[in-house]
Amino acid sequence: MIVEYDGSSYHGWQRQPNALTIQQVLEETIGRVTGEDVRIIASGRTDAGVHSLGQVASFVTRSRLTAEEFSRALNSLMPRDIRILSSSEVAWDFHPQFCARGKTYLYIILNRPCPSAVLTNRCWHIARKLDIEEMGYAANMLEGRHDFSSFRSSSCNAKNPVRTLYRLDMQIKGNLLEFWFEGDGFLKNMVRNIMGTLVDIGIGKYDHERIAEILEARDRKLAGRCAPPWGLYLVSVRY
Amino acid sequence: MIVEYDGSSYHGWQRQPNALTIQQVLEETIGRVTGEDVRIIASGRTDAGVHSLGQVASFVTRSRLTAEEFSRALNSLMPRDIRILSSSEVAWDFHPQFCARGKTYLYIILNRPCPSAVLTNRCWHIARKLDIEEMGYAANMLEGRHDFSSFRSSSCNAKNPVRTLYRLDMQIKGNLLEFWFEGDGFLKNMVRNIMGTLVDIGIGKYDHERIAEILEARDRKLAGRCAPPWGLYLVSVRY
Repeated sequence: MIVEYDGSSYHGWQRQPNALTIQQVLEETIGRVTGEDVRIIASGRTDAGVHSLGQVASFVTRSRLTAEEFSRALNSLMPRDIRILSSSEVAWDFHPQFCARGKTYLYIILNRPCPSAVLTNRCWHIARKLDIEEMGYAANMLEGRHDFSSFRSSSCNAKNPVRTLYRLDMQIKGNLLEFWFEGDGFLKNMVRNIMGTLVDIGIGKYDHERIAEILEARDRKLAGRCAPPWGLYLVSVRY
Repeated sequence: MIVEYDGSSYHGWQRQPNALTIQQVLEETIGRVTGEDVRIIASGRTDAGVHSLGQVASFVTRSRLTAEEFSRALNSLMPRDIRILSSSEVAWDFHPQFCARGKTYLYIILNRPCPSAVLTNRCWHIARKLDIEEMGYAANMLEGRHDFSSFRSSSCNAKNPVRTLYRLDMQIKGNLLEFWFEGDGFLKNMVRNIMGTLVDIGIGKYDHERIAEILEARDRKLAGRCAPPWGLYLVSVRY
């Protein structure tokens, strides 16, 4: 399944006791359709408040419904902030996480004095004027193959902190700034930690050359703050 | 004041008995700040569900707060789906409606099989594949100075139905279609009636040449349906 969701009302993707998550809604809805106790596997977790335009998730079922019938049934039973965009049958050995070869994320910043009435929970509002040129230089320095230890959460347990960021593009659309991240994989909170650091550079706290030092240090304490989840979108997963 | 709002939770701009409107929220909030019983004038009404990125509204007050202090005070007291983007003092004879020389509207269509989880109430979802080329031809035919009687609501009471549409641009952004309307003025429901007709053309109900007949007839019954309000944004007002 390709799953779009507005993360605003959920405690992230992964099932938790005492908090509603997207995985739980999907699993329970599949349970209503098939009568089975189904476990879903996704391409990875998303944090509370993070959105998805193309999360990939799969499950095993004995149901004879076609993939298309499943989409329709699930969409008709789920809240409007979770949608199955499409679905198809896959081979037994397909694993949404382990087979993933890359992901694309989008982070949106609104840079103007006043927050938006229309884009509430859809972007990070920064009132202070950002130095876009400095942010662009910094973004360029992050592209490529690096040890991203300085940009991973202290609770990240990936064994290898080296990732390749094929692309980190900044697109300026009026006072909206879009940051497109394309990489072979992402460490925990990596996009949000990078975005926090880019904004610290944009407000003049450091200049862009600091990026080299931060990468070199492999120490989370050197990078900037963690950007809020509501500006972040998982766009697509590549296989 | 330049006012942005998400129209989803309101019964439109204009004050009504027994229904919450944006005008009422603004007037009551100004009342809380100044202690006065204030009446707001806007560039025009927007229907229930229609959004604004740049409604213009003004009021008269004896308060000594500066325009900037007003923005800050109102924003701190209002719900997050209404924001004052900026404000300034204006001459006594400024009238947001009568001094307006033109307006820009945006209408957003999402054209794909599944509705969006993230853009709920922000665009018109059309599942059927639209013939974008035909819609583009039709949009071009509507540009210019015309009698738009066929595209106004039966309850529209403007004396002169002639308006100039300087620009009706269609911009394709993946499966989002943006329609930008720039004109010297708009009749009641004119943008929504045009959009309904463009979609009827897009699904093949008529071809684009029908536009000439519809304009010629000056009869609302000839044009297509009225598009839903939630795809419509008042972008800006020109003075």
